[in-house]
Amino acid sequence: MAEKKVIGIDLGGTTVKFGILTTSGEVQDKWAIETNILDEGKNIVPDIIDSINHRLELYNLSKGDFIGIGMGSPGSVDLVNNTVTGAYNLNWAKTQAVGEAIFEGTGLELAIDNDANVAALGERWKGAGENDPDVVFMTLGTGVGGGIVAAGNLLHGAGGAAGEIGHVTVEPIDGFECTCGKKGCLETVASATGVVRVARKLAEQWEGDSVIKSAIDNGEAVTSKDIFSKAQAGDKFAVLVVDKVCFYLGLAAGNLGNTLNPSAIVIGGGVSAAGEFLRGQVEDYFNQFTFPQVRQTTKIKLAELGNDAGIIGAASLALKFEKA
Amino acid sequence: MAEKKVIGIDLGGTTVKFGILTTSGEVQDKWAIETNILDEGKNIVPDIIDSINHRLELYNLSKGDFIGIGMGSPGSVDLVNNTVTGAYNLNWAKTQAVGEAIFEGTGLELAIDNDANVAALGERWKGAGENDPDVVFMTLGTGVGGGIVAAGNLLHGAGGAAGEIGHVTVEPIDGFECTCGKKGCLETVASATGVVRVARKLAEQWEGDSVIKSAIDNGEAVTSKDIFSKAQAGDKFAVLVVDKVCFYLGLAAGNLGNTLNPSAIVIGGGVSAAGEFLRGQVEDYFNQFTFPQVRQTTKIKLAELGNDAGIIGAASLALKFEKA
Repeated sequence: MAEKKVIGIDLGGTTVKFGILTTSGEVQDKWAIETNILDEGKNIVPDIIDSINHRLELYNLSKGDFIGIGMGSPGSVDLVNNTVTGAYNLNWAKTQAVGEAIFEGTGLELAIDNDANVAALGERWKGAGENDPDVVFMTLGTGVGGGIVAAGNLLHGAGGAAGEIGHVTVEPIDGFECTCGKKGCLETVASATGVVRVARKLAEQWEGDSVIKSAIDNGEAVTSKDIFSKAQAGDKFAVLVVDKVCFYLGLAAGNLGNTLNPSAIVIGGGVSAAGEFLRGQVEDYFNQFTFPQVRQTTKIKLAELGNDAGIIGAASLALKFEKA
Repeated sequence: MAEKKVIGIDLGGTTVKFGILTTSGEVQDKWAIETNILDEGKNIVPDIIDSINHRLELYNLSKGDFIGIGMGSPGSVDLVNNTVTGAYNLNWAKTQAVGEAIFEGTGLELAIDNDANVAALGERWKGAGENDPDVVFMTLGTGVGGGIVAAGNLLHGAGGAAGEIGHVTVEPIDGFECTCGKKGCLETVASATGVVRVARKLAEQWEGDSVIKSAIDNGEAVTSKDIFSKAQAGDKFAVLVVDKVCFYLGLAAGNLGNTLNPSAIVIGGGVSAAGEFLRGQVEDYFNQFTFPQVRQTTKIKLAELGNDAGIIGAASLALKFEKA
């Protein structure tokens, strides 16, 4: 009998990504479907079931070939009941019994967690985390999210909010207002829109030649990508903005290091496309804000799996059914 | 046959505290001996062995009545080899094979961890932590230490530095220098000497009637206890100092909450003798620096076990020998 496999699902507001993986995390096949969020997203789970059953048929596989399914989802995930609530980019305001429906539709058990946690598991298992027991993942995108693996366990905390690195306070006195209701969150200065927000603020007091500064003053659309690429090209104002963003990221990463001393703090998400230019500057501030033992044992790394982190981490959730 | 017991040892620079506990954490007997740090502390372990053997004889107990021994120690603890290095308040500069010696001397296996971690385990097991899976402990004394239990595990991190809450950066721009080599650490503003340091700094710019301000300006000895007691009595300058210290503690606690979302952050150590007066003010800042989910599920609590946290937490380490 061939070794059993696992299925990983990365559920997003635009696409649903699927992967068939070995138990050692090799992606053997992957595909994606569009997310149909119409009618309160009521077609999403049936579409997922159809797509899995179709693929299994196509490859002449049956449920007996699989240990189970793992899924990363937006919104608030109930790990015990396998339900999702308040995933607004899926139009899922009400609680969805995702696990039950998928088990009925495929005959396979489902393990589910939130998308940032699942991406963290993926990077820890097969990416920059090198499968170490202590790894922190932060993703810089539309928002700033994260996941923490400590002593080998993904952390959820008392209310499911562990790993919400985007809401660490990095500017306690005069910070920007955050969508969470408090001020000075990392997300307000290090997400894609946060980087632009920092630029707008610094533009008020900066004088000199800069295409970024001019664009902001002229009310033109400026993106975080523009700011990073101009900074790399030597635009002095853009350099200043990137330095400030990296100060905040290095402070947050430093305190994650001082608290958890993981072997790696892995940076992913769209903003991390700036690559080594970003990583090196974050590391400089990280070194400034950590004490020697941490500085020597915690590394700042870039994520390695890109879009596959979700399906890989999701698949890893299903390994818990292995001995069942 | 009676239920087996565990022994907990809290090794400190002044006294060694011992406890005999049931496996459910009830202290059945406790005693203490003086720590003899003469001759590079070479008598410490033999004294511990003699004291245990003497007590066991006294109570007509033998090694067969015990599962094992747990110990909390200052210095850098090697959990695998059960050794301690660089415990300067014991005069242990060189590595001490504590576990081996105690096993030879008593016939009982030893599990060891550092003193702050062990106190955290104690408060988590039988104190304010209510045996929850996610509990953070911070101790405000001569220094600021801590321990983190996350998803049921005590964290050590990649280099053994997890839980070093005293070195979280709370003043990134213009902080005081810390003994660790960096600046702005929580310890520089919230340890017993840190509170006085904050007072000295604020005294430079404060005008008005205050016994604390006068004492500082006159070069008299002022303690953190004096500052807290005068603040409670309404001294305006002392109130300002306590507010600033609680701002830093609330910021650090808030970010521990935003990161780990424990059910409780437990404050202990000498400075926490200020009790509810301290706790309430830390909580106010904690609420300001946490997002709603964390604010609703993470509580700020005072430690409950006092001096017994060490022997209770140490004893809990020995439970791992139960099934061996």
